[in-house]
Amino acid sequence: MSGFVRRIPEGDHRERMVCADCGYVAYDNPKVVVGAVVIADEAVLLCRRAIEPRQGFWTLPAGYLELGETLEEGAARETWEEARARIELDGILGIFSISRIGQVHIMFRARFSADASPPRFAAGAESLEVGLFTWNEIPWNRIAFPSSCWALDAWRRSGSGPLGAPAGNPPEDARGTRPPKGSPMAPPMARE
Amino acid sequence: MSGFVRRIPEGDHRERMVCADCGYVAYDNPKVVVGAVVIADEAVLLCRRAIEPRQGFWTLPAGYLELGETLEEGAARETWEEARARIELDGILGIFSISRIGQVHIMFRARFSADASPPRFAAGAESLEVGLFTWNEIPWNRIAFPSSCWALDAWRRSGSGPLGAPAGNPPEDARGTRPPKGSPMAPPMARE
Repeated sequence: MSGFVRRIPEGDHRERMVCADCGYVAYDNPKVVVGAVVIADEAVLLCRRAIEPRQGFWTLPAGYLELGETLEEGAARETWEEARARIELDGILGIFSISRIGQVHIMFRARFSADASPPRFAAGAESLEVGLFTWNEIPWNRIAFPSSCWALDAWRRSGSGPLGAPAGNPPEDARGTRPPKGSPMAPPMARE
Repeated sequence: MSGFVRRIPEGDHRERMVCADCGYVAYDNPKVVVGAVVIADEAVLLCRRAIEPRQGFWTLPAGYLELGETLEEGAARETWEEARARIELDGILGIFSISRIGQVHIMFRARFSADASPPRFAAGAESLEVGLFTWNEIPWNRIAFPSSCWALDAWRRSGSGPLGAPAGNPPEDARGTRPPKGSPMAPPMARE
């Protein structure tokens, strides 16, 4: 990005990266992360990360929404890439602002596709292993990201019933400040 | 962006713009648009656009989420910039994929802040005029963007009651294809 300079484009009110040659403005805006809480027999699908950040920790299948995708397509693609699972989405469980790192996380509730043949999941390229966990089996002290805990909490509240208003950030973390690396996540039940 | 080339970075599976000098990858992902359906006495706040696209047409106050903001902060900032209104948000009415143009629209239900002194709104720099409209007064054939219609429809369904699951794209427009420029919007009630 050597040809870019930081300045406020005409009509704007924030500094942007602007190409000194052609005037192209490289707007840098928050990115959308889409993912799924895939439920089967009251257990949830988790992936152990093969890559940084948080390699070796567990996460819900999720990743960046790409251009041209709907939110639903992105969540299904990420679940396929990371957990080799074909899923059907039934609605949004939670929407979280992780403003410190410029991300918005949108997490769906999902189930395996009716026509998925066993085994219904496997580790994708970015996962070391993938498994189903009941609530009490979830490795709370090895969860990679707070938004996974928040989405799991929203799943527990909704159960298999109708989805209500989406969960947002917990009141004590409205801006999505991530705890120091390596610190165990508090299970959501500990916050009640 | 003269120093950039289009190629697939190592470990990726999509072409990205990569700086030929330094290897910087300029990821281009969908952007988040946040906005508000501001309600007062069963009327909704609309802005007539002073700028393209859709100059002269009416819209809900909304715009791009910026780095460092929460969704709520972004919706409140855009409402201030476009309608000079201070608001309080009470939840998400709808989340829409406009995948043709790489946008995700997240629309909140809101009211004027309790301490807002009259006049509670005015045209901001990007608006020609701003006004309150009851459902039957909404200028349906002069609405700028489909997502405004969808959010207004979600408002009508929720009324002032509790917010349920957020509305999504209508089934007939799951990918957010915008009608041809200049065509009148169908009021949501015409779709039922």
